[in-house]
This record gives sequence, structure tokens and C-alpha cells, in this order.
Amino acid sequence: MAKFKVRVLYDFQGEQGSAEMSITAGETLTVSRTDVGEGWWEGVNSKGISGLFPEAYVERMGSSPPGVPAPMLPSQTDWGEANAPPKEDWDEDDDWDDEATYSEIGNNQVNRNSIYSNEGGNQNQFSYGSHVQNDNVSLSGVSTMGDNKGTITKKSLNIFSSYVKSGLETYILGTASNLPVASKKYHIFRESDEVLGRWEVISNPYTVQITSPKKATKMGGLKSFIAYQLTPSFSNVEVSRRYKHFDWLHDRLTAKFNVVAIPPLPDKQVSGRYEELFIEHRRAQLQEFVNYMCRHPVLSTCDVWIHFLTCTDEKQWKLGKRNAEKDQLVGANFCACVEAPDKEILSSLAEPKIDDTMNYVAKMDQCIKNLMQTAQDQQKKCTNMYKREFSRIGECFFALGSAFEFNQQGMYSKASVDVKSIGSTYMTIGKLYEEQGKIDWQPLFDKLYIYKGITGNLPDVLNMQKLAEQKKKECERNSQVPQVALSEVRHRTDTLTYTVFAELHHFQNERDTDLRLTMKEFLQEQLNFYKNVVSKLEDTLKQFD
Amino acid sequence: MAKFKVRVLYDFQGEQGSAEMSITAGETLTVSRTDVGEGWWEGVNSKGISGLFPEAYVERMGSSPPGVPAPMLPSQTDWGEANAPPKEDWDEDDDWDDEATYSEIGNNQVNRNSIYSNEGGNQNQFSYGSHVQNDNVSLSGVSTMGDNKGTITKKSLNIFSSYVKSGLETYILGTASNLPVASKKYHIFRESDEVLGRWEVISNPYTVQITSPKKATKMGGLKSFIAYQLTPSFSNVEVSRRYKHFDWLHDRLTAKFNVVAIPPLPDKQVSGRYEELFIEHRRAQLQEFVNYMCRHPVLSTCDVWIHFLTCTDEKQWKLGKRNAEKDQLVGANFCACVEAPDKEILSSLAEPKIDDTMNYVAKMDQCIKNLMQTAQDQQKKCTNMYKREFSRIGECFFALGSAFEFNQQGMYSKASVDVKSIGSTYMTIGKLYEEQGKIDWQPLFDKLYIYKGITGNLPDVLNMQKLAEQKKKECERNSQVPQVALSEVRHRTDTLTYTVFAELHHFQNERDTDLRLTMKEFLQEQLNFYKNVVSKLEDTLKQFD
Repeated sequence: MAKFKVRVLYDFQGEQGSAEMSITAGETLTVSRTDVGEGWWEGVNSKGISGLFPEAYVERMGSSPPGVPAPMLPSQTDWGEANAPPKEDWDEDDDWDDEATYSEIGNNQVNRNSIYSNEGGNQNQFSYGSHVQNDNVSLSGVSTMGDNKGTITKKSLNIFSSYVKSGLETYILGTASNLPVASKKYHIFRESDEVLGRWEVISNPYTVQITSPKKATKMGGLKSFIAYQLTPSFSNVEVSRRYKHFDWLHDRLTAKFNVVAIPPLPDKQVSGRYEELFIEHRRAQLQEFVNYMCRHPVLSTCDVWIHFLTCTDEKQWKLGKRNAEKDQLVGANFCACVEAPDKEILSSLAEPKIDDTMNYVAKMDQCIKNLMQTAQDQQKKCTNMYKREFSRIGECFFALGSAFEFNQQGMYSKASVDVKSIGSTYMTIGKLYEEQGKIDWQPLFDKLYIYKGITGNLPDVLNMQKLAEQKKKECERNSQVPQVALSEVRHRTDTLTYTVFAELHHFQNERDTDLRLTMKEFLQEQLNFYKNVVSKLEDTLKQFD
Repeated sequence: MAKFKVRVLYDFQGEQGSAEMSITAGETLTVSRTDVGEGWWEGVNSKGISGLFPEAYVERMGSSPPGVPAPMLPSQTDWGEANAPPKEDWDEDDDWDDEATYSEIGNNQVNRNSIYSNEGGNQNQFSYGSHVQNDNVSLSGVSTMGDNKGTITKKSLNIFSSYVKSGLETYILGTASNLPVASKKYHIFRESDEVLGRWEVISNPYTVQITSPKKATKMGGLKSFIAYQLTPSFSNVEVSRRYKHFDWLHDRLTAKFNVVAIPPLPDKQVSGRYEELFIEHRRAQLQEFVNYMCRHPVLSTCDVWIHFLTCTDEKQWKLGKRNAEKDQLVGANFCACVEAPDKEILSSLAEPKIDDTMNYVAKMDQCIKNLMQTAQDQQKKCTNMYKREFSRIGECFFALGSAFEFNQQGMYSKASVDVKSIGSTYMTIGKLYEEQGKIDWQPLFDKLYIYKGITGNLPDVLNMQKLAEQKKKECERNSQVPQVALSEVRHRTDTLTYTVFAELHHFQNERDTDLRLTMKEFLQEQLNFYKNVVSKLEDTLKQFD
């Protein structure tokens, strides 16, 4: 059917021994087939090599944006993979021994994704190449700072099956079979054309405190692990969870939600994970994750999360796990739980908003990354550079004061005492700096880490809306789709669009309340620090009177 | 007469074409003559090369400290050299064109001395090798941080004639001819064995303000120079002085006083000397010099200084210059103007005090140098590093706040405004840092520069006492010296010792008042700075409420 030229936008490494071909950004291909399905096209490059390549990696030359071909319906959902037995159970004890250490800022999200990308997760990793505006937002919409080549290549292998797995097609077309009736409904309100959607306010807000991480042992002391104690305010019953439980929870959440952005977990870490400082910091990081969950209108009430927060019985835990892993209202099908306004959303209203938000999120993502780097940098400088500078100042004064002490005429030297006290003061300020980074910069960093995870996920969420819109338009163009079905397609698309906008609204609301509060707390701690410095200097100065 | 072995303590570069030989620290020489005179010995090195070398550069091997040979009386004083017509006069206009730039800390004093060392100045540059305890106090007692090799070599050429020129021998032996009667007497009081001597308190204390440095021109604009306006409080008559006048003054002071430490002038500088910042800083430095002069009981009343402070007439100026250059009560002979207590000073009391003070001064010299380096370093870091760090923090917050501004749902973002204001605040703090170094660290540095000059000169002053003591002991051992003459030698030695201790007392007093006040002012400025930071942060924080 085809015969047109496309320009390759992004490198793609075809899998050896398959029908895939490798393509390089900038080269020109002649497309021979667009009906391969699942987002694949067939084409020939300038060397005459032909093969399959992802349609989203190319753009039609000298044309308006390419029409999206109708992907074939999936032969059958491969949910079986997602329903595979979990790798870990309650008793399994890996103690993170198999965890690699990732410490680079910005790679956190990428690392997590690259870990999950082969687990059959339902993350939407389908990309929307023509909307990539910023090299910090990768093809998959996930921020990939630094060396992202490996990640992209790895992810690209199942980008297109993920597209199918996201459930978007089955949801929009209403072809998902055996979907259960949603037991819980999430309401969305539309207030104006400006605020297209927002979630119902949480009716029973609650908090969860993570306290006293404990080093525990099992198998007669052979294995040790850290257990964090979580106490939800609604139950006041403490539950004990390990990092691996958080990890499993996070897997389930990312599998279930691709129209809701999931906050990131702190990185897995091997070295130093039994050190007191590390454990306390890990607790603070997990608290940030938990806080975000508690404040989210959807996440805070979802079954797997409540199960995680409340289950204290081993058998119930396993049962809950099984149920969570069998959940079918995942991906786009989650929208079956959403009750959105009836009012139709005009594409002409939604589209520019989505495009603007893409840019907006990319810009924010970059700015958050920069501030995180600065926060990490300043935290390091507090313990190293600033401490060293002030210690050196202190030492110089102190040494001079001491030199004054030695007095051949045996006179008491007030200058000696005073100059030494200046020295002590600056050495004390040096020590204050050493502690300070943990008080102001680190909490700021930890909060930004959560938001960086969200801005890294939002492009995926936005892409879902775009894909749904495309799917709807396809149906509209297809004269064989009956009016009744079309009306349902439109309604479902609108529901998904409302969901995406509600999620965006929530994000902005969080930014304006939670993130702003963190900024305020940071400022307060900085203020306290400088007030402390002022007080030390004042005390020393008084001595001179 | 001789035939003993000595170990070379310091490198010495013999002048080519003279009888001098070059010697290297560590090598062994066989001394063939010790009666060469003026501190020179003759010897043979391991290669059989023989020649003259400075006795103070070697130590006798396997022996107690070497006896000091009696230097021959000078054949005739070569005052003629010191009385040579001055190189510059009122009208001569070099505009510092012939000045080199010296910027290294610690080399200042050395540089100045190396400039002056060939001008026949009466500085005591005789060294007392066996009392050199610290590599920061060089042979000549002048602090020589850094690359001092060239300086020492240059200075060593007239170290020994300087010894003679210092007038120590003629003063102690009472052989100076045609010494005028002192028109002014400086009184020294002895209060206890602890405080051996202190100068009479200044009866009419005064201050001198240096204001409004002006760029002036002469020769129809062909030549330009900076004129500093000095107003002494005792006359309230403004006089205009250029750096070269200060320079001439300093030459005269160092020529006249070798039992009193002269504060250093700021370095000569070629580049940027008409720049506003440089000029203002130079003014502040000269003010420090002037302040030290005004507070010194001897210097503040000496003729050349009063002439410098008061003369407004060109003819009078030249006359005063001639008089100053003809002054014969210079070097040790200045002690002829000192009225010391009659009470004899026991060598057993003075000697350990002098030795202790040598160590004390060396230690202080090093500590002052370190603090100066830190002050200079911090000043630079204020304008560079700290400013950069805070600007970067500010920029990151500001960019994030700006990213919040772009809001696809058109909502007003309080977070945007607030986070931008955090950004502005940190950028402002960055600018505060940029200015701060000039307010706290630079004045501290300038004050320390004066004290570094003093601690650099004090070893010379202390050496004078040691040499006088030796000369006295020689006379005591010499049975040909009549009792009456011996009694006078003792009295004159005691007067010089009292003078040296009075000078030490003054230094310690200055340290405990003037330097301590500077420390206090520094602390106050640091306090003001951090209070300012606190106030900026407080204002920003208020915005969050």
C-alpha cells in the first residue's frame, strides 16, 4: 500500500535474528508497508536493506504529520505475562543482595525503568516522537539524563508491545474481555475550560508515619535486613515493611497506573545500607514516597496500597499480593473506574493544552534536575568545602592567638584570649556547616527526587491522551464503525482525557502546596543556620567589650 | 692563626672577580684566617678553592658556639655614601614608572629591603646565625617567605659593612666622632623585672587622616600622579603627598632607626595604579602606615616624620630633606637620644628574654603570614567562589520558579512567585558576598600587613641587643680597656637594651590594643554580613505566610 519516504528521527537497534532492521537518525528510508501492526512499519534503506522499524522513530518527509495507521488488534492480550507468579514472596530473603547501586542523579528513574522494562509491566512506554522537544525527555517520555543509550535500546525492544499492554486499544475500542465491574469509582469534576478536570478531594485524609527503622535478623542471625515501621493514622496499627516490600508495591503501582504518575522509590543501594546514616536517610526518603501516596486522591485509596499499609498477617499478605497481581483494571482500563463529567472535550481545546504541558513538564524536569544537582553539590560542600574553609579560618586565628600567648614579658594578653576565641568560633561554624547539609539541602533534594520522578512520568501520561485521541480519530475516519460504538469510543476517550487532566491538576496542586512548603522549610532551615552563625559571632564579639 | 673546620649553614654566592668564594649549605670548610675583619673569614673548601666568606654563614664543628672575633674598627666611616645627594627631589617626577610590581604575600618586606639594601641605608642587616630558629626568619632577621635566594645573595654583599654602618660599634665604644647633642630625649621607664622597659606615653597624641586621593597632572598633563591629602589633627593643615614622598620618608626612617621597628609601606605597584579601587585601597593601606606611626612614642615625634606631615613649602621641604639625610643620630647612635633607667640590666635576665622573644616573634610572624594568606584567599573567594555558589543556587531556584510560571491550566501559581523570590534572594546574597571581602577581609589583611612588617623587623632589633651585649663582653675581657671606659660601655649597652625592650613592650601593647581592635572590627563586619543574610532570608520567608 505504501511507497513514501521517511526521515529517521532516532537511532533504533534492530534485534539480531529478527525481521527488525537497525536505523540511524538522519537517514532516509522508503516505506514499503505500514500495516505491519503494533506500531511497526516495513521499509528499505539506501543500502537496499529492508526490515521492520518503529513507526514512531521516523517522520514522513515533506508532509504534514503522518497519519497514524491503524494498528492491528492484538491477536490476544498477553496478560498472562503480567499475571506470572511474583518472583519474591513473603519469606524470600534477598536482602537486596542482588541490587545494584545507582547513585547518579537523573538516572534514578531510568535505572528503575530499565529494571522494570523487561518484567512485563504495564507502563506506557510508547513514545510520541514528534512531540519530543527536549533532549532531556527521552523517547519514552522518561527523563534520561546522562548515558541513556543503553536504556533506550533496551526499552525500545518492547515499546510497542507495551503500547498494546497498556491496554489503551482495548480500553478505547471497548474490546477488553472479562473486565470486572469497578468496585470503587473515582470522580472527576470539571470547573471551567481552564481547569478541565480535577479529582474529587480525598474524603478521609490520613497520614502514614515511618518510624524507627530496625535492623532485624532471621535464620538464626545468618541474614539481616532493615525493617521500617509504618503507622497509618486511620488504623494506628504499626506494620513492618522492608525495602523489598516497597519495591514490590512500586512494581504493582506502575503496572496498574499509566494515567497516574507514580512517585519514585529511593534507589536500591548495596554499599553501606546497614549504616545508621544511610538507614535514617532511607527512612526519610521512603517517608517522602509515602507522603506523596497519601495525598494522591487515587493512589491513597487503591487496594494494593491499602493492603500494603494494613496487612499484618502472612497469609492475608500473600492473598492480597495474588489479588493485586491478578488485577485487570490496569493501564488505560483503570479509566473504567473513573466517573468523568459528561461534557465532551473538544480536541481543539485539549490538544494545545497537552502540547504545552509537554513543554512545560520538560522544562520543569530540567529545572528540577538542576536544582537537585545544586542541592547535592551544596550538601557535599557543606561537609567538605565550607567546613574546610571555616575550619581553616578558625585554625589561623587560633594559632595566632596561641602565638600571642607566649609572652616574653610575662604579661597577660587579652588579645591572645580574644583571638583564640575568634578561632574557636570559626571552627564551630565549620562544624555547623558539616551538620547543616543534612538539615536543609538533603530534605530539599529528597523532595525534588519525588517531583523529578513525577515529571519523568508525566510525559507517559500525556502520551496516553495523545494516543487515545489518535485512536478515536481513526475510529471517526473509519466509516465501518457504527455511531453507537463511536459515541462510546468518544466517551471513553474523554474519560481518559479527563483523567489525564485531573492528574495534571493534582500535580500542579501538589507543587503549589507540598513542594512550596518544602521550599519554605528549606528557607526556614537556612535562616536558622545563619541565625546560629550570627549568634556565635555575637557571643564572640561580646567578649571584646 | 686558625685551622679548624666549620660547617656551612647557608648558601652564599661570592662576588665574581673579588676575593669572595661561593659556599653551599652543608659543605665543610677549613678556616685559615678569622682576622679578615668586618665579619669575613678566609677558608678552603674540599676542592681546594680558597676565599673569603661570611663568618655568620658557618658554624664551628664539634664545638660550642663560635666566639665572635673582634671586627676591626672601620678605617673610616663611609657616611659619605649615606650623605650622598638624594636621587629624587621635589620636582623630579618618576610617577613610579620605575617601580616593579610585587604582589606575593610575605615577599613585600623582602622586596623593599632588597631595593634598599644597596642604598647605604643604616639598617642592621648583620645576622646572628646561631639564633636563627625558624626558616621564616632569615639570616638578616627579615622574614623571607618564598623564593628568597636572590634577596639573600644580594643583601649578603653588604651585610657586614651594614654592621659597621649600623653604628653599633661606634656607639657602644663611644668612638663616634662629631655626634651632635640630642635636641630631644626619649624617656624609658622600668617598672619591674618583667617589664624591663617602656617608652614614655605620648604626651600629645594626635591622628592623621588621609583623605581624597586625587589624580593630578603636571607638565601640562603629560605626567599624572596620585596625590594623597594628609591632615594631622595637631595642625589641621592639609598636606599633599605622593607615594614617592612616602617612599622617601620610609627610606629615611629605616636609615635612622634600627632599634625601632618601622611599619612597612604598601608595595609599589605599576599596573592599575590609576584605577579607582586601587587608589582607594592604597589610601587605606597608607592610612594604616600613618596610624602606626602616630601611635609610636618615638616615631610619632621624630623630625623627619613631623617634617613630612607639616611642610607645605617647597624650599622648606628641600631643606628638611637635606637635614634628615644629614642626621647623624642614626642606627645605634639613636640611643644617644634615649634616657634609660640607671639600673643595670643583668645579662642573665636579658639574654633568655631576647632568645625567647626571637622564637616568639618567629612564631607570630608565621601565624600572621598564615592568617594573611587566609584573609587574601577568603577575599578572593568572596568575589569568586562564594558569589558563584550563591548565584548558582539563586539561578536554579529562579529557573524552577520560572518553569512553574508556564502553566497549561492558566492557574496563578503562588509557588512560581515564591520560588522565584528564593532565587532572587540567593542571587542577592551572592552579590553581598562580592562586596563583603572589601569590607571585612581586606582591612584585616591590611592591618596584618603592618604587623607582618613589624615582626619581620623585630629580629633585626633583637639582634642589635645581642651584638651590643657581645661587644660589651669583649671589652670586659679586654684588660686594656680602662674601668671608666668600661663603665660607659656598660651604660650604653644597657641603654640600648632598654630601648629594645621598650620597643618590644610597645609592639605587644599595640597588638593588645590596635590589632585586637581590628579583630573586633572584623568580627563586627562579619556579624553585620550574616545579619544581612538573615534579614534577606527572613524577608523572603515572610512572603510564604
